[in-house]
Amino acid sequence: MEVDRSGSVTSAQGFVAGAVYAGMKTYGDGKLDVALLASHQPCTVAATFTQNRLHSASVDIDRAKLAAGPVRAVVVNAGIANSSTGARGIVDGERAAELAGARLGIPASEVLICSTGVIGHFLPMDKMAAGIAAVGVHVGGGPEFARAIMTTDTRPKHAAVRFGSYTLGGCCKGSGMIHPNMATMLAFLTTDAPIERGFLQTTLSDVVERTFNLLSIDGDTSPSDTVLLFANGAADGETIVATSPNAVEFAEALETLCTYLAKEMARDGEGATKLVEFRVSGAANLIEARSLVRLLTTSYLLKSAIHGADPNWGRIVAVIGRSGVTVSEPDVSVAICGVRVFEHEEPTAFDPGEVATAMQGDTVVIDIDLGAGPASATGWGCDLSAEYVSINADYHT
Amino acid sequence: MEVDRSGSVTSAQGFVAGAVYAGMKTYGDGKLDVALLASHQPCTVAATFTQNRLHSASVDIDRAKLAAGPVRAVVVNAGIANSSTGARGIVDGERAAELAGARLGIPASEVLICSTGVIGHFLPMDKMAAGIAAVGVHVGGGPEFARAIMTTDTRPKHAAVRFGSYTLGGCCKGSGMIHPNMATMLAFLTTDAPIERGFLQTTLSDVVERTFNLLSIDGDTSPSDTVLLFANGAADGETIVATSPNAVEFAEALETLCTYLAKEMARDGEGATKLVEFRVSGAANLIEARSLVRLLTTSYLLKSAIHGADPNWGRIVAVIGRSGVTVSEPDVSVAICGVRVFEHEEPTAFDPGEVATAMQGDTVVIDIDLGAGPASATGWGCDLSAEYVSINADYHT
Repeated sequence: MEVDRSGSVTSAQGFVAGAVYAGMKTYGDGKLDVALLASHQPCTVAATFTQNRLHSASVDIDRAKLAAGPVRAVVVNAGIANSSTGARGIVDGERAAELAGARLGIPASEVLICSTGVIGHFLPMDKMAAGIAAVGVHVGGGPEFARAIMTTDTRPKHAAVRFGSYTLGGCCKGSGMIHPNMATMLAFLTTDAPIERGFLQTTLSDVVERTFNLLSIDGDTSPSDTVLLFANGAADGETIVATSPNAVEFAEALETLCTYLAKEMARDGEGATKLVEFRVSGAANLIEARSLVRLLTTSYLLKSAIHGADPNWGRIVAVIGRSGVTVSEPDVSVAICGVRVFEHEEPTAFDPGEVATAMQGDTVVIDIDLGAGPASATGWGCDLSAEYVSINADYHT
Repeated sequence: MEVDRSGSVTSAQGFVAGAVYAGMKTYGDGKLDVALLASHQPCTVAATFTQNRLHSASVDIDRAKLAAGPVRAVVVNAGIANSSTGARGIVDGERAAELAGARLGIPASEVLICSTGVIGHFLPMDKMAAGIAAVGVHVGGGPEFARAIMTTDTRPKHAAVRFGSYTLGGCCKGSGMIHPNMATMLAFLTTDAPIERGFLQTTLSDVVERTFNLLSIDGDTSPSDTVLLFANGAADGETIVATSPNAVEFAEALETLCTYLAKEMARDGEGATKLVEFRVSGAANLIEARSLVRLLTTSYLLKSAIHGADPNWGRIVAVIGRSGVTVSEPDVSVAICGVRVFEHEEPTAFDPGEVATAMQGDTVVIDIDLGAGPASATGWGCDLSAEYVSINADYHT
């Protein structure tokens, strides 16, 4: 399926969005930091949230609202995560959703909230209120919504995919503290297809496992991670359920869009200069394939070597060895940028200069065959640069 | 117990050591790279090795020799790990031990081998042979042995501790690819006390769990990790067994020395400017306390914040939350350099400037009380600097 890079959360019919600068974001793109997304019609909504036990108040608020009844809008603030802020964090978040509902003319119960930024600061409610009062939503608002949710991201990440007569659009943010577990750092997806809620949630959970959850920028799971998928049915048609003829097409559209967005996040990782794609095959089972992919994306040594375009495959073998996954040692092979560098328990006679040159591109592909079974998985990460350190040594509390 | 920083592996009676430069180490301290350590008397030996499944040929060789009979010497080469080198790696390593035995006038079966450096290169046997032929061992050779085993280390790490009428000395190396699992990247310990083998091994395994295995520089477990403890009984006396009156004293000496060496490694981590000590208390059990300590030592975000002397405690809370350990949220508290920054689910009114100033020292202590139980653990790591990245982007294959 084709990814339309100009698409966004307002590409699907019936969705509007907008953003303003309320003065909370003091770094990165300081122009926008409060955003609204809403559907004219009632929606079915699927969501996945962070598994971090000490999470944002916004995550608690959203879980409760989704369990209680239908929702159709979300207010997002960037700069302050409203996490580790106790009871006051809940009160502040609920008040913000209430103000957003009033602004949109819908009940507060139908408005979710997402917060991203520094942990442990309270929401400045005067700025939030002024921001929400000032924001206007419109059908072309998707791109500005995608910009407003950014923190250390260097560029917005949004796209859309068509399936049948429907559109699925989305955006996400995330550049540091990215090692999603069940969800990632703020992704918003919208479709004008009518989709049954159970099928919507099952498909989202499954796709998130295969896309955002196989992405890591630095191994740290954010306490704000959230993926929200709104389906408003504005494009009419039969409600899509698991047995519908177009169910597979919808799942494929969702995977196409989420894969695109996950790769965009990896490429825009804090300080990153390269996207790294890890492809593990020959694993004993899917759990082992995915766990190895996750581990590979987090090795400081490997990420540093890739930054230096150094075909130091020994660091890949060291990660495989410590991963605990089943390996058939004589059958393990490793390739970097398509060149086999290790097999039959020994280095091959590859040309390091040739591989180093290939590694200087903006995408590095690592293929690993464990020779132990039929399972495979693909995941994404980025290189580790000195810039990552300075971003995070300076990004103050 | 007092740590004597001038002590080394030759402080205990009856041990000799020496080193030469054989031309294998092309980086770091290029002056010495082949070293020998031997006891005049027969020894009891305890050892722990890496849990990395794809490990150095030297580890396989040593495991087999220790199972087969007594050993009393070790030859070490730095610059090449002889790991992922298949059958040829085993042949090369055995040949090197044979040459070292001939040089020392003892059977090859009594000589272990340790190799550290780049993974996936074969040992240059001509250089190894010339080096071993040239090395001379002597009672003052401990410090030069400690220098010879270094790779990216910036300084040697050796010390000794007295217990009763006995001496326990040791040295270690390790600066990158340090996240030991059951052992760490090359530590050599010697004592002139007579110690029963079973008690020696039990005590070593236990102390390693509480010292080297709670150290992490970058989360990567080396395929060469080895701790060897030689007890030659040269100082005479009753053989120490688990029920001996001085058994506890020996265990305390071993823990004192290993703690000192582990902290020295953390302080000399690649690119590190600070030692970070993590003290977790109030954990539900010891496994959870240790696993949280290990996780804290590996967070890119936290390590970067500490590098910037930034009291960004939200990153500590984020790690606690994703760790999966049992927490009593209202009772969790976090202190940085002795200043409480988070408790009762909310930030305290601490002075960030005061904490930032304290963090500019060469040691940063983080205290975490999980409020969930009686267990505690302490571990060590270091900050993440731009220098780490350049060391590892340049340290070529």
